[in-house]
Amino acid sequence: MRVGIFGTGDVGRTLASAFVTLGHEVKLGAREASNEKAAAWAKQAGPKGSHGTFADAAGFADLAVLATHGIANPEVLAAAGAERLEGKVLIDTTNPLDFSKGVPPRLAVGHTDSGGEIAQRTVPRARVVKAFNIVGHKSMFRPEYAGGPPDMLICGNDADAKKHVTALLRDFGWPEVVDFGGIEASRYLEPLCLVWTIYGAKTGSWNHALKMLRK
Amino acid sequence: MRVGIFGTGDVGRTLASAFVTLGHEVKLGAREASNEKAAAWAKQAGPKGSHGTFADAAGFADLAVLATHGIANPEVLAAAGAERLEGKVLIDTTNPLDFSKGVPPRLAVGHTDSGGEIAQRTVPRARVVKAFNIVGHKSMFRPEYAGGPPDMLICGNDADAKKHVTALLRDFGWPEVVDFGGIEASRYLEPLCLVWTIYGAKTGSWNHALKMLRK
Repeated sequence: MRVGIFGTGDVGRTLASAFVTLGHEVKLGAREASNEKAAAWAKQAGPKGSHGTFADAAGFADLAVLATHGIANPEVLAAAGAERLEGKVLIDTTNPLDFSKGVPPRLAVGHTDSGGEIAQRTVPRARVVKAFNIVGHKSMFRPEYAGGPPDMLICGNDADAKKHVTALLRDFGWPEVVDFGGIEASRYLEPLCLVWTIYGAKTGSWNHALKMLRK
Repeated sequence: MRVGIFGTGDVGRTLASAFVTLGHEVKLGAREASNEKAAAWAKQAGPKGSHGTFADAAGFADLAVLATHGIANPEVLAAAGAERLEGKVLIDTTNPLDFSKGVPPRLAVGHTDSGGEIAQRTVPRARVVKAFNIVGHKSMFRPEYAGGPPDMLICGNDADAKKHVTALLRDFGWPEVVDFGGIEASRYLEPLCLVWTIYGAKTGSWNHALKMLRK
């Protein structure tokens, strides 16, 4: 298969090399045909690797991969040419990240508020800590999983309140608690409720809990 | 400790019983003091369990727990009384879910668009499949984890394209692929990029991948 990849960063080059390892032909696309990272990648990739512009990669592709900065996607896809992608599978590996306010970034699209923030605004002098919202009620107390323990993710503006809740969570059987920062991190924890729910609907499992596997 | 819980559904009653099991006193709060689920819960909970209105539970609490429907939080907290919660830890277990368009629900707050949807709108006749966006590039090819394999979550509007990408993901070393539905599910998969990133920042782990532990 011929694979066209848009983007020469870590993701683009990692996937490009993986496709070559699996026996596919890859063209790594960049804004400029002279892109040095793309040229260096193609040189070490051997005969199955080549590089060019976004349009070159789109024209080459049986299957295309979008691996540029997510907020640049409209510009990148316009340069690639919608007509060159008609009917083709386009794997979108990107995230619309906004680094303008530092690290970690924020999502630049949607995600303008959260239930946690609304609760905190409604009772401004209470010390709101988001917790338990990422897992079903059957797993809230003493979750027992092969491969566990699962992770509990919390957030809130008050450090002492989070310490208190972390100690409580340990009593509840959650030794792994990760503090995600201020209450605005509810923008990331609340979608995990939907991840939990849709995962259940799609797999038929209603007794599951998130864990980050780590090396 | 005295715990006041707002909400008599599965989450409220599960947490109420857990707190009692751990030796705490619990008052389960509802809109009406006569709420039958709250009364039934208190009856079986023994001397450490009681019930009342949201305001009763707020006044009782050393620590309060919000476990009503997320979209009702402002109303529930107004009934509880912001002044009764001043300085108290308030655990927010809720999610602002909108069931008006069926199941699975949507997030009622924020989350009005996603990068995946923008990409699909930009190249309307390409078949966009969101994939790989929830994990760092070091884990994209042949992820090896004790306790693995991790889960890959994908979405997109074209069923055949998703089958193709699922087969490719298996080649890449991802036997567990869950199809989250149409491209609008990017609204849930893109926040997982931030979950991955913030988890890394908070734990110092930069080689991690999500798995749903299942029973």
